[in-house]
Order: sequence, then C-alpha cells, then structure tokens
Amino acid sequence: MSDLPADLAAALAARFGEGFTTAAAARAQHAHGESHHRGPPPDGVVFARSTEEVAALLSLCAAFRVPVIPFGAGSSLEGHLIAVRGGISLDLTRMDAILRVSPGDLDCTVQAGVTRERLNADLRDQGLFFPIDPGADATLGGMTATRASGTNAVRYGTMRENVLALTVVLADGRIIRTGSRARKSSAGYDLTRLFVGSEGTLGVIAEITLRLHGIPSRISAALCSFPDVVQAVEAAMAIIQHGIPVARMELMDRGLIAAVNRHARLDLPLRDTLAFEFHGSPASVAEQVELAGGIVREFGGEDFAWAASPEERNRLWKARHQAYHAVVGQRPGAKGWTSDVCVPVSELAGSVLHARALLEGCPVPAAILGHVGDGNFHVVFAVDPDSPEEMEAVARINSSMVRRAVEVGGTCTGEHGVGLGKAAYLREEMGEAVEVMARLKKALDPEGILNPGKIFDL
Amino acid sequence: MSDLPADLAAALAARFGEGFTTAAAARAQHAHGESHHRGPPPDGVVFARSTEEVAALLSLCAAFRVPVIPFGAGSSLEGHLIAVRGGISLDLTRMDAILRVSPGDLDCTVQAGVTRERLNADLRDQGLFFPIDPGADATLGGMTATRASGTNAVRYGTMRENVLALTVVLADGRIIRTGSRARKSSAGYDLTRLFVGSEGTLGVIAEITLRLHGIPSRISAALCSFPDVVQAVEAAMAIIQHGIPVARMELMDRGLIAAVNRHARLDLPLRDTLAFEFHGSPASVAEQVELAGGIVREFGGEDFAWAASPEERNRLWKARHQAYHAVVGQRPGAKGWTSDVCVPVSELAGSVLHARALLEGCPVPAAILGHVGDGNFHVVFAVDPDSPEEMEAVARINSSMVRRAVEVGGTCTGEHGVGLGKAAYLREEMGEAVEVMARLKKALDPEGILNPGKIFDL
Repeated sequence: MSDLPADLAAALAARFGEGFTTAAAARAQHAHGESHHRGPPPDGVVFARSTEEVAALLSLCAAFRVPVIPFGAGSSLEGHLIAVRGGISLDLTRMDAILRVSPGDLDCTVQAGVTRERLNADLRDQGLFFPIDPGADATLGGMTATRASGTNAVRYGTMRENVLALTVVLADGRIIRTGSRARKSSAGYDLTRLFVGSEGTLGVIAEITLRLHGIPSRISAALCSFPDVVQAVEAAMAIIQHGIPVARMELMDRGLIAAVNRHARLDLPLRDTLAFEFHGSPASVAEQVELAGGIVREFGGEDFAWAASPEERNRLWKARHQAYHAVVGQRPGAKGWTSDVCVPVSELAGSVLHARALLEGCPVPAAILGHVGDGNFHVVFAVDPDSPEEMEAVARINSSMVRRAVEVGGTCTGEHGVGLGKAAYLREEMGEAVEVMARLKKALDPEGILNPGKIFDL
Repeated sequence: MSDLPADLAAALAARFGEGFTTAAAARAQHAHGESHHRGPPPDGVVFARSTEEVAALLSLCAAFRVPVIPFGAGSSLEGHLIAVRGGISLDLTRMDAILRVSPGDLDCTVQAGVTRERLNADLRDQGLFFPIDPGADATLGGMTATRASGTNAVRYGTMRENVLALTVVLADGRIIRTGSRARKSSAGYDLTRLFVGSEGTLGVIAEITLRLHGIPSRISAALCSFPDVVQAVEAAMAIIQHGIPVARMELMDRGLIAAVNRHARLDLPLRDTLAFEFHGSPASVAEQVELAGGIVREFGGEDFAWAASPEERNRLWKARHQAYHAVVGQRPGAKGWTSDVCVPVSELAGSVLHARALLEGCPVPAAILGHVGDGNFHVVFAVDPDSPEEMEAVARINSSMVRRAVEVGGTCTGEHGVGLGKAAYLREEMGEAVEVMARLKKALDPEGILNPGKIFDL
C-alpha cells in the first residue's frame, strides 16, 4: 500500500489526472534500475509532460515534505531510482520533445525524457550527432544527472563537456536556467556543471542544451587482437600518449568476447581485444590508422580486422553496447553488478592486472571491458542477489578495486555515479570535500526531499 | 592607515614575519588590477608560501571576520582585486612551485602562483604545453578563479575543460581536494567546476591539477585580410560550422592592427584580419589549411600570409597578446575598459556589426578583437577614468552590447569574469539562478569574508 498523505494524493490526482498513479504495477516498475540494487518501491508515480508540471509536483511534495525521485529510462546501475524513504517517482519519459536544433551553432535543446538514440535518429539528416553513449538507450536527463560518458568520451568528452545549459526545477518548485547558449562563459558559479552529476539530489533536470558535432566524413572501425589483456591496455596507453585522436578505443577481454558472441550471434576471435573507431577526413583517418597500427604492432597486436560496411560497424558497436546484458544473460536469473573505477592512464595496466588477479577466485561469471582511453574500466559480474556468499565475494573484489584506484589517484566511479552503490567509498576518495557537498545539498534542498539517501546519507 | 584589528595584525606579524605588511606601497600595489576599476586598497598584504600558510591566514581572518582577497599577477580586468570592504590581500605569487609533471598521463600539479608562461617554459623540453592563454602572463590560480580562456580555446577549451582537480582552502581554514587525477569521474558534485570561476568568493585555490597537451608536430600560423569585419566573422563562422579543428582563429579589426603595429613595431596590412594557427601532423595541417583557405576565399579573404619562421610566429602572437596594452597605450594616461560578450556563433556577425555601429559615436579610441571561433569578442576602449562623460559614454556602449548578447542567448562575460564590472548584468542574464549562487556562497562562506562584493553583493 501507498504511504502518501491522503491530502497530497488527492492534490496529485486533481493536478495530474491519469498522470498520477499508485497502482502496484506502476510502482513496481519504478522501484529499481538495471542492477542488483533492490529496495522499497515509491508510494506513487507521476508522469510529467512539461517543466511546469515538474514544478507543480515539486511545490506539492515540498509542502508535504515527501521525497521525489526522478526516473528516466530506468537504466541506472547504482541504485539511484530506489525510494529508500518512499515518496513519488517522477517519470520524465513523456517529456520527449526535441525543442530546438541549431545546426549553425552545433547545439540543441531537448526535454529530459528524450533518449540518446532518439536524438541521434533525429539529427542524422542534418549531418549532426550527439556522441555520448552509455550502454543503455538512456534518457538525456538521466545521462546528465549521472555525468554519463561511454565509448566516445576519449575524443568527445563526457556529459560534463557536452552540456551547455540546463533548465532545472528546484526543491521548492522554482524554475531556473543555469547558463546560456554561449560556448564559454565566466558569468558566476558554474551551476550547469553543479547539476550535471548531481543525481537528482539538488534539483530536477527538465531541459538540456547540448553541444552537437558534425558527422565525420570518414568513419572506420576495426578490431585488434592481443596476446593478453595487459598488452592491449599498454597499446591503448601509448596511443593516448602519442595524442592520436581516436574516437573510440574499447577493451573487451576474452571472457567478454565470448559473452558478446553468444548474445549477439557474432563470431569474433576469442582473444583480448581492442575495438577502435577512427573519425575524420579520409586523409586524417588514414594517418590515424597508420600511426595506431604501428603502435599496436609494437605491443603484439595483430592486423586490424576492419568492419567492412556501415552495417557491420553498427552491429559491432551494438554488440559492445549490450555487453552488460551479454554477461548477465549468461546465467538465468542473475543480476548485474558492475565495477566502474577510473585511474590515471599510466596506472591502467597495473589496475587491470590487479583486477584480473582478483577475478581468479571469483565464484560468478565476470568479464572486463573498458573505455581504456580514459583510464575507465568495468568488471561486470553476473550475481545471484539471493546468495549472501556471492554478494559478499563480489563486494570484496569491488572494494579492493576501488581502494586501489583511489590509492593511485583515481576515482570509485568513472561514469555510473554514486547512487547507493558507491556512497560508502565517497568519503575514502574525497575526504572532507564530502562535507562541502553536504553543505551544498543542504543549501539547495533544506528539507531533503530530492532523491534522499543517494550520493551520501545526511 | 590600516584598519586591521590590532590583535589580528599582531597575530599575522607573529605568524608570517616579513610575509605580512601594512606598508602603504605594498597596499597600493595590491589595490587594483589592470583596468579602469578603482577602489580602496587592502588593510594589509600577506605573501603566502604554502597551502598551510593560506589555511593559517584564513583561520585567523575568519576569527576576526576580516575579508581576504586572493591576488595573483594583478591582471584582472573586472575589479576582482579591489578591497571594497577592506581586509587582507593574499598574494600567492610566492607559491610558484611546479609540484609534479606526469608526461605519461598528460597532467601536472602546480601551486596557484605559477604563471602560464613559466609553466610552458618548464614543459617545453618534455614536448608538452598548457594551451590556455589570456593576454597577460597570469597566474594559473587567477586563471582558474576567473575561468579564463584565450586564443586556443576554440580547439583546446578553457580552464573549465583543462582543470582536473584543485586543492582549496575554505573560509574556515580547512583544506579540501576537489577531485582526483582521473580524466573523468561521476563521484558526487563537481566541486572542481564549482570553484573554477568562483573568483575567490567560495574558497582560495592553492594548488591546481591541469590537463596538458602534446606539442603538435606541425604548427603553422597565417594572417588573412578581409574587405570588412563582417566578412571576416562570417568566414570564421563557416570554418567552425565545417568542423575544421583550427587551434587559433583571432579577429583583429583595422583599428587594432594599427595599434598593434605601433606597439609591437610590426607592419601588418591595415585591414580587418583573421589570424590563424593550425596544429597537427603535417598531413592534417595541410588539409586544414586547404579547407580553411577555400572558405576564406568565398568570403573575400586574401591568400594566407604565412609566418615564415617560429620566431615570426611567436612575434605575431606576442603582439596579439599585448593588444590590450597596444590600444590603451595609444593615449597617455588612459586606462583600459574591455567588453567581453560571448554569443552563439551564428549571432556573431550581427553582434560585431552592432558593436561597430555603436562605436561610430564613441569619444575615445577603441578597437575590436575576438576569439571568434568561440563567439567571444572584445572592444577595448582607452578611457580617461577622470572624465565622467567618457566613462558614461563607454558604459552606455558596453551596456548595449551586453543586453544584445543576452537577448540572443549569450553571456555578459566570456572569459574575464564578473568581479565588480559585470555584477549589475548577472541578474539580467541569469535571472533567479543568481539566488542559487547566493545560497551556495552563503553555505560555503557564511561570514562573507571571501572576496566580498564580487560577482554579486549580498
């Protein structure tokens, strides 16, 4: 049963009509993301259609001190969507309008519920694309809230670099605009970057102004097999250090290749592999390929195996984007648990080797993949969340990876966010800076109604 | 006379010895930046040598509720350094150690008082450089505090994109670290970006971890003359829209060329000009030059006039960096006043044309220059600050430019910061978002001792 105050439920029904529900099925659907994290469902779900509706919801919830948890594609990996203190799940997927595209300025504005694939389908005819691509077809609101990145970040940056401005609804229902359409600005505090990555805890992101990029005239993708994972990583490091502007450079270890082959019906060679994509003019791509080819050979890499057609290339990256499901799906009933450390590039080989050693004793299927150009890699585990032994074993491996990452100057989360899963590590990584974050939270959400219990527990 | 509480003065003398002074000459030297802004000098000056000394100063000043104004190279253009409520000028120029350079990770950590030229001199032998280059040889602390950029931002971004992490001393003297050395992170609020651009009002930036870049194997610079300024801007817009990765693309109008010729003893053609620099491999530079050359010809641009040697190239950019002094120096006794709007690229030609029309009736020498690839341009005025008529006329032109920039989706300041000079415009541009900034300020500096009166007046 829903624990909403009756007066609030009545007010929500009056304001949102069929856009408000306390039905068990809807609440269950909005109770979790993709991963192993579990918790109570929300007390109700509101489907907003506009920034003004988001503002109306927040005003009402503020009056009743009832939590609000923003919800997009539901692809969170760190428990962001769990209603740990009850409240309303604010589903933004009906806010799916692309409000403006300005090819001359290489920017656009979208509502928070637009997904990345939807946006790119819309942009294609104009010769433009938006590069940030987490595995899931996430909403741009969710991607902004978690400071997401993906396979293109090595060349194009993350949401941090590609959001120009936001429309945000504050805890009291006020609506602000955090920036302008200027490519750069020194006009006061960088509120845009403060809300990017704030995981719904400082305000609800309603509209997003994004930087776009021209589709390069030449795109070429290739796989390169290595004798082992460390040589693959060392080759990737050398490519970065040589300043070759690769667009994608993804590590897939042998185990991942096996899972992906099965899941996507491919027959990639069962070797530790780097998957590359090169963007640019024909001359620039040719030069990048020559330089990168020389480097991979030095580290024992084989000749590039080229994707022969755009279709084959798309199939390759689609398989890569489904890696999480490929690993988890190997084991019926299993849930996913993903590590997400990011370290200075020079520490990457050591960190992957350390992870590999930890996996020797791992009782569940696991595979390594990574955005190695950024120093970010994941181990995906397929766990049985009802097995305390398995959960503990994976937690131990994950902890050990995080501690090592922090020791060498890295971070506990490169792109998935803190949510519930990394909250315990944030203080280890950030020390007293967590107090500063808590003060900011208190300043913008004094009643603590915005996605409470995430990032840190006040 | 200094208005410092006697007990604080005694404590500072005991703690800092000769690093603390209330001498009139030192106070006068720390009373202002480069521009026309004037105000009272600080009550005293402290020269800090370490993060711990900064922390000690802030603890003492917090106890006495005495303001602290961080001071670097003194090259502020918006009145950031003026002690509007008295207090201590914290001179960071003795914190000039380059603490670490990691070529393999393309990053380094410096103390806040290191200047950009000093850092680049140190990096050159390792084949690395730090691209952000405001006109002055500013300190990296000051550049971080104002979210500075300069001529390379079109390719390499601004301080926003090139600061990885900071060591910050808070208002109460506590020391925090805002990030890690990972290239990307989703670990909580982006404190690094919050302090970048906070102009000393949220904390004192003591150490900075910066992204570095490899010196490109080919660097070529050229000038291109245009029939008029609008065609030059339209050519620049088209180059951006075509995605050509120019490293520098600077507008210098006829008036600026005249001033620069005089100041730097050059004989550049007296035409509205774009100055280019191309970075990359030889093949990539050749391709960029061919593409850009085709575009400038479409807009009436002449053939590129190439800098024949590295020395000539350096002389050209040095002259460009001294543009401010070249304009102001035309008129003995004058001070500089610089506008700093930044607009969406598609609005640039219209905005420059608007500025040009406003300058028709301008009573003082003025010239237009701009980082046109970013949509950012300046008008530099050489004013007599003692002439109310001149100051009013320039203020009127500047206001009109700012209002138009905000109307078309731009910002009042692309790179110089708010300080005192843009505070009146911040609300026009940001609306209620300024209240959010004020709440953050109050959360981190409840007593209001950190550079009070800057950005906004609480």
